[in-house]
Amino acid sequence: MEDKLMLMIPGPTPVPEQALLALARAPIGHRSGDFSKIFADVTAKLQWLHQTQHEVLVLTASGTGAMEAAIINFLCRGDRVLVGENGKFGERWGDVCDAYGLQTERVKAPWGSPLDPEVFREKLAADSNKTIKAVIITHSETSTGVLNDLATINRYAKDHGTALIMVDAVTSMGATSVPMDDWGLDVVASGSQKGYMIPPGLGFVAVGPRAWDAYKTSNLPRYYLDLGKARKDAAKNTTPFTTSVNMVMALQASLGMMQREGLAAIFARHERQQRATRAAARAMGLGLLADDSCASPSITAVVPPEGVDAEQVRANLKKQFDIVVAGGQDQLSGKIFRLGHLGFVGDRDILAALAALEATLQRLGHSGAVGAGVSAAIAALGAS
Amino acid sequence: MEDKLMLMIPGPTPVPEQALLALARAPIGHRSGDFSKIFADVTAKLQWLHQTQHEVLVLTASGTGAMEAAIINFLCRGDRVLVGENGKFGERWGDVCDAYGLQTERVKAPWGSPLDPEVFREKLAADSNKTIKAVIITHSETSTGVLNDLATINRYAKDHGTALIMVDAVTSMGATSVPMDDWGLDVVASGSQKGYMIPPGLGFVAVGPRAWDAYKTSNLPRYYLDLGKARKDAAKNTTPFTTSVNMVMALQASLGMMQREGLAAIFARHERQQRATRAAARAMGLGLLADDSCASPSITAVVPPEGVDAEQVRANLKKQFDIVVAGGQDQLSGKIFRLGHLGFVGDRDILAALAALEATLQRLGHSGAVGAGVSAAIAALGAS
Repeated sequence: MEDKLMLMIPGPTPVPEQALLALARAPIGHRSGDFSKIFADVTAKLQWLHQTQHEVLVLTASGTGAMEAAIINFLCRGDRVLVGENGKFGERWGDVCDAYGLQTERVKAPWGSPLDPEVFREKLAADSNKTIKAVIITHSETSTGVLNDLATINRYAKDHGTALIMVDAVTSMGATSVPMDDWGLDVVASGSQKGYMIPPGLGFVAVGPRAWDAYKTSNLPRYYLDLGKARKDAAKNTTPFTTSVNMVMALQASLGMMQREGLAAIFARHERQQRATRAAARAMGLGLLADDSCASPSITAVVPPEGVDAEQVRANLKKQFDIVVAGGQDQLSGKIFRLGHLGFVGDRDILAALAALEATLQRLGHSGAVGAGVSAAIAALGAS
Repeated sequence: MEDKLMLMIPGPTPVPEQALLALARAPIGHRSGDFSKIFADVTAKLQWLHQTQHEVLVLTASGTGAMEAAIINFLCRGDRVLVGENGKFGERWGDVCDAYGLQTERVKAPWGSPLDPEVFREKLAADSNKTIKAVIITHSETSTGVLNDLATINRYAKDHGTALIMVDAVTSMGATSVPMDDWGLDVVASGSQKGYMIPPGLGFVAVGPRAWDAYKTSNLPRYYLDLGKARKDAAKNTTPFTTSVNMVMALQASLGMMQREGLAAIFARHERQQRATRAAARAMGLGLLADDSCASPSITAVVPPEGVDAEQVRANLKKQFDIVVAGGQDQLSGKIFRLGHLGFVGDRDILAALAALEATLQRLGHSGAVGAGVSAAIAALGAS
């Protein structure tokens, strides 16, 4: 049906009506007092979401632009960095580091497995000359649905003493707790079309004081993504370059909704929906790429059973039910499909998607008790 | 009044309802077939606007991001470049070049005057060793309302033979003809919140074949703004990084409107409204920063008469009439105000703004025959 699409992909995620209506407002001048008030309010709300007193800077860019800003503002040519790589977005961090001539040391794990914190511990502990300048981690690996153990890896980085910790929180921010100040995270990058519940078009970089110290000596070239410029102007509630005014107005609306729901409730909702999705998948006889111990709160990668084609599952969900789920990327192409439960997703959406998935599997000839998946999801969602 | 604001600044410009409504649509997946169709259509329309058969690439970035992409994709560290500088945005080009270690040679003119093509001719003619790699020009200088003589400077660059010509067309694209292929322009950068009639948030870079040749040997670091990646994906009607889906949908709507109006009619409308604005300003006894011979089609910088404060003019226009005009920037701060006639502006808007300006001047004690400005504007607008 026209206009009936339901996005269950890990971004863009569904956008609530009040954010859509804010997008449709006539723009105001980005240098006006009225806009500065909006920008100040949005900045305070972003700090709330990041659980930080430090700057959260707004870039007109995608999440990758925010990631690149993290790298190029706080490091120097030739710096040794440890980059966690267990999926497409970990690979991307490494690619960005390579593009700027860093000494990129990849700490790999297979796609679908979590990064091993012990490898980081060993490398950091052995670095008595303090040559490691940063540890760069994808928190929730969107390509596999794995949540890396950021808390532990961060602890090892802290034990090292000088290495910065930089986090891609693109699909974890707004889905699970990323307590920037409590953990002492130095740089946290994210993007608007995920937990923020607005369309793509804005990137965010939160920056702590140790990173600003490193900024002073960083020598990588930059202009548009120069966070020092952004910091200076953010102090005056503005941006160095014309910001995406309508997107910022939509963000004000969506962050307001998030504040009214509350951080604890948001995180509990994502965790509950993740458990329900995984329980249902198991009950339907489907495989799960990531183990329970490292399951992302926002995205579940499902391995279809023998004889069922992942792309056929996606095609039927789209055609019959107007539900869009994501496919596998690169080495996982055709082998999995990925169900997003990120952002503006209610328990009703989860039941609808899982029921549609059961109908689809039946149509594709998968034997199994129809109804088992939905029953398992209902049980997992509980009475809340 | 609430919701009554009329933007007469050089960006963001007013946005038509059908573009606003497109912004408010539920986003669709940026990797979907449906979105690729939209992207293909938008790309074709962008080529129409640029009067080119070559790629026009879409970046999630402001105009400055597009300008930086122009510099860093086609040049090498240490390259000698001629940068025209007669306003804030010319200065910015130079700053970007400096940030990347180019040998930046600024060709200056006073703010409010046009660049002198003869200086470019001499420098280019003297460069028998072909050390000049690019000539970088701001077409319409937004800070002063000066339209630089791109056609002539470009001809001298062509006589040189190897120097690329790169153009900031941020406030000229969609306001006056920038015939990329006819003139053989190599790189043309622009931004969405101007002639495109949509809010800020997208940047555009059109690239010709000589620039792509230079891309092969360019050695400046880049990732997010790598136009080679964008070109490769554009050929498949997609983008390397998540694009601003809703902004692209709005752009499809606004470019459709522009096609229905037609390039010649759009350019004639801007030229007519510029003439009307200038005739009215003169009839009111106001000064014009730029000479008729170099007046921008999209922005008129007005010098208030002795005893009238530019900022008071702006404040009264805003307070009594809900009309926003821009102030002077940097060295022109407080000395001028700038009236935008760019994008979605009808003749009615021009008359309203000029009548409100007359009322404002009267209120601020400026002696002059009230009605003279509007009369002059009506005459200049003619019967069309």
